[in-house]
Parts: sequence; structure tokens; C-alpha cells
Amino acid sequence: MTVPTPDARPHPLFTEEGSAEVVVDAFADTPDPRLRRVLTSLVEHLHAFTKDVGLTQVELDAAIDFLTRTGHACTDVRQEFQLLSDVLGLSMLVDALDHRSGTASATESTVLGPFHMVDSPPRALGDSIALAPGGEPTMVTGEVVGPEGEPLAGAVVDIWQADEKGFYDVQRPDDVPERNLRGLFTCDAHGRFHFRTILPAPYPIPDDGPVGQLLSATNRHPYRPAHIHVIAGAEGYRPLTTHVFVEGSPYLDSDAVFGVKESLVLPFDESRDADLAAEHGMPVPFRHAHLHIVLGR
Amino acid sequence: MTVPTPDARPHPLFTEEGSAEVVVDAFADTPDPRLRRVLTSLVEHLHAFTKDVGLTQVELDAAIDFLTRTGHACTDVRQEFQLLSDVLGLSMLVDALDHRSGTASATESTVLGPFHMVDSPPRALGDSIALAPGGEPTMVTGEVVGPEGEPLAGAVVDIWQADEKGFYDVQRPDDVPERNLRGLFTCDAHGRFHFRTILPAPYPIPDDGPVGQLLSATNRHPYRPAHIHVIAGAEGYRPLTTHVFVEGSPYLDSDAVFGVKESLVLPFDESRDADLAAEHGMPVPFRHAHLHIVLGR
Repeated sequence: MTVPTPDARPHPLFTEEGSAEVVVDAFADTPDPRLRRVLTSLVEHLHAFTKDVGLTQVELDAAIDFLTRTGHACTDVRQEFQLLSDVLGLSMLVDALDHRSGTASATESTVLGPFHMVDSPPRALGDSIALAPGGEPTMVTGEVVGPEGEPLAGAVVDIWQADEKGFYDVQRPDDVPERNLRGLFTCDAHGRFHFRTILPAPYPIPDDGPVGQLLSATNRHPYRPAHIHVIAGAEGYRPLTTHVFVEGSPYLDSDAVFGVKESLVLPFDESRDADLAAEHGMPVPFRHAHLHIVLGR
Repeated sequence: MTVPTPDARPHPLFTEEGSAEVVVDAFADTPDPRLRRVLTSLVEHLHAFTKDVGLTQVELDAAIDFLTRTGHACTDVRQEFQLLSDVLGLSMLVDALDHRSGTASATESTVLGPFHMVDSPPRALGDSIALAPGGEPTMVTGEVVGPEGEPLAGAVVDIWQADEKGFYDVQRPDDVPERNLRGLFTCDAHGRFHFRTILPAPYPIPDDGPVGQLLSATNRHPYRPAHIHVIAGAEGYRPLTTHVFVEGSPYLDSDAVFGVKESLVLPFDESRDADLAAEHGMPVPFRHAHLHIVLGR
């Protein structure tokens, strides 16, 4: 018969009333104090939830099946648990808790999302990131500044977005060039950047898996409002991960992943300014958005 | 641009303070009231947990990675999420909540465990379920009765257990006959049953996956004390899923899945009763356990 491990920690026998305490006690020898604290709180909340709703065996089995299918849906290019975290609002909550800049004037952050899976290619200011035909021509201008409005020369702005059909390049590799609608820009001496692109479309998060089934069973749609992803950074300042949302887009009031913040919704107005168009090599009319990015310290 | 679904439910924009409320509101159109209640409580507890510990982005990413690996470890013959539920005490809690018999005198239940994946073969009373050599000869006798002690003629008793090395048949298919140490018995007119077997050994739950890593990181051992699984049923009575634990086994006070209840620990004493041995075709000495099973209504 197997010999007991010498350090087996005895714990009290399980009771319904003391269920969380018994399990927390079993974790009491966890060497890493942070892991112990996280597991203690997790066990307390999971047991409280289970008792609160009186979870049945059939429901626990269904939950285990759901998690298993969610795991099986995860591949190198798809993260179904990330989607689950997103549609439960946990990604946004962690973003809020973890990404406080401490600088009140700083641009607000939002979720990274699952499509920053490849590096954006470095591009020159003024380049177009739209490598495939189609879409409404759009010019983006902007600047990166610090908390006191000081321009951040050489700040780096990483951009990625969906196309006019709502797809990222990695979702249609056979149809568009690699790195379509992605670009890494270095700001000029005044902290300014500008590039050409197309207007992004709203799109559904991947909804052919277990998370899509959850949304469907709860009468939630899978759509996100039109947006451009931005990561901005400058030495000595706190990096910012955020989106710019297209004012007037559908789903701004029902983003499937709760990513919208009012300050991040910007006009992408139609412009017929022929001089500006000529300067930037744009056709007329074109859409124009201006991003004022404030980094915290 | 995609047209909004007509029934898209607007929800308030996300805020850290109101995070749970915003997400709960998004689930407000869930048609199934039970699903809505479960999701509401789940979201509230998950957000409370996340805020309670101030979960960081790195920790959320680690949790997503852990869940993904747990999903990938699940196969036709292994359920890693079931193991996770077990080591977090959730399986025992749901068992306690869901399997209340309402009959105070009924035998206590415990978890089903992951090894009831194949049907037990029907066997005659007195048969041996040990189809491979090795192990300490053991005789199990018992009876199934109702709440007032009435014998339940024809009650069915489903038995499965690990061998003397701590393995179930499905874990070593090349070494032992199929259905080794499994049997389905029908009680006689007095509700009695008896069969021959070997003494089970304690064993570790499968610990070469993510759940094993969790146990290891938290200084918890993966062992379960020696036990025999029992499902007992009789028409008109509430079915019972339980274990019988071997008195004196290591790990009775630190079962990795919290399954032990004091009333389920029984003596498996050595017997030298030559008459009893002859009657049952046992060698001398042998171990003997007697199970008195009371079903609720």
C-alpha cells in the first residue's frame, strides 16, 4: 500500500456548511502568498455561487461540458477562453483594475482583443495600411502627448483594424496580403503621426463555438462596433492599449465585449477638403479622424 | 456596414464600479429564467472575486492559459475539468446540495468520480470481481434496506474499485481483463448481497496534467484514501451514489477530492473464520467488510 507523503496536510472532513473553509484549509500550505490569496478568494466565491443558486449535478455536468468544449475550441489562432472572459466583462474589469495610469488626463484604455497575434509592420508616416482594394478611404491624423500636453517625439503607435467586411487579415489569409490593415508608426519631432486606411466595419466576435452558443442562448448578439486598435508608447510614459470607436457605428451601446468608453468614440467625418486630400494623397471625399493620445506616467 | 440586429439590447457603458451590473444587464433577455439566474450570480461572484484580489492582466492571462491547457487535457477517457471541480471541492458541494435524500437515516452520498465510464457487468451473488492475480482477498457482504429498515429485495448494487496498485481497469487495459473489479449485483429476497474482491489501494488522481500542477504548486498531494465505489438503487427509493472507505487507510484525513465522510469509513478486518471462508470460497486469512445501505425515499 502506498506510503503517505510525510507532509500530507490533514484537513477537516467536508461538510456542506463549511465547504469553502475545508477547501481553503487544504490550500493553506501554498508557498506563494499571492497564489494562496487568489485561490482562497476564488474558492470562497465559487462555493458561495454554487450555494446561492443551488447548483444541480446536471448543471455542474453541463458547466464541465461547456468548459471542455471551450478548451477544445482553442487553437493557435483562436482563444475561446479569452472570448469567454471578454463576453463576461472580466477582460474589461481586469483592464480597469490593472491599467490605471494614475494620470487623470490620460487617454482611457480598453481591451487588447484577440487579434494582436502578429507583429505590426513598421511603416512610414503617411503610408497606407490598406493593402487590398475596397473600403471607404480614411485618413487618420493624431499626436501623442504627455500629461501636461508635452509632445512626445518618437512615440510609437501600433495600429490594427478590421476591414470593410469586418475581418482581420488573419481571418482571411487567402484573400488579403499579410499584415493588411496593420502598421507600426513612429511619431515625428512634434509627436505627430498620420496614415491612410479604410473605415473599419462592425463585426461579430467568432461565434461558431461554445461562446457563440452562450450568446445565442442568452439572446445576446456577438457584434462589436467599428473600431481601430491602438497601442501607444513612449519612453518614460505608461504604455496605453485602447481602441478608437467610429462615432455613429451600430452596437456602440451593446458591444459584445463591453469595450466602449464614451471618450474613445470619435467622429470619422466625411471631408471634401481638396487641399488636405492632395497633401495626403487621398481621393475626395474621404473620412477623417483625429486622435489626441495622452499618455500617463 | 452591417445592419444592427433589431433586438440588440442596449446596455449601459462599462464602468469599474458597475461592472457586474452592466454585464448582468446584458444577460437580461435570457429566455430561460434558470439560466439567467445562474449567469447573474456567476457574473456577480466572478466580478467580486476579480475586484477582491485585484486580479492583474498577467494573472488573467495565466488563468486563461490554465483553463486552455485543462481543456486540451480532456479526452474520451480523461475529464480534467471534472478533476478540477473535484480538487476545488465543488463536486462534493454539488453532491451535498443536489443529493439530499430527505431521509435522515439514509446512507450518506459522496462523489461519483471519473471512473464510472463503462458499464459494470452483471454478476451472480458470491462471484469474484477480481479477474487478475494479486491483492489481498476480501469478502464484502451487505444488505440494502429502506428508511424503516425494510429489506429491499431485488435492489441493484453497482460496484467498482481500484486494484492493489491503485489502478482502475481502464487505466491499465493491456494488463488486466476488461471490467476487472467491476460488478452489478442484484440483491436476494432479503435485500442481501455478497461478493469477492481484493482490498483496494489508495491512489493519486491523474496528476500529470494542469490539475496536478495546481496541486503541486499549492503543496497538496493528489492521493485518495482506499475505497470501493457503490451505486445502490431500488424501485420507489432514491438512488445512492457513494463510497465505502477502508478504515485505517492513509489519506482519510486529506482526500484530494474531499470525498470522505465519517459514516462511510468501515472496518475491513482480517478474518480467520474457516467456516465463513469455506462457505464463500475464500482463502484464510481474508479481509471482510459489511455494508449496511439505507436508501431514502
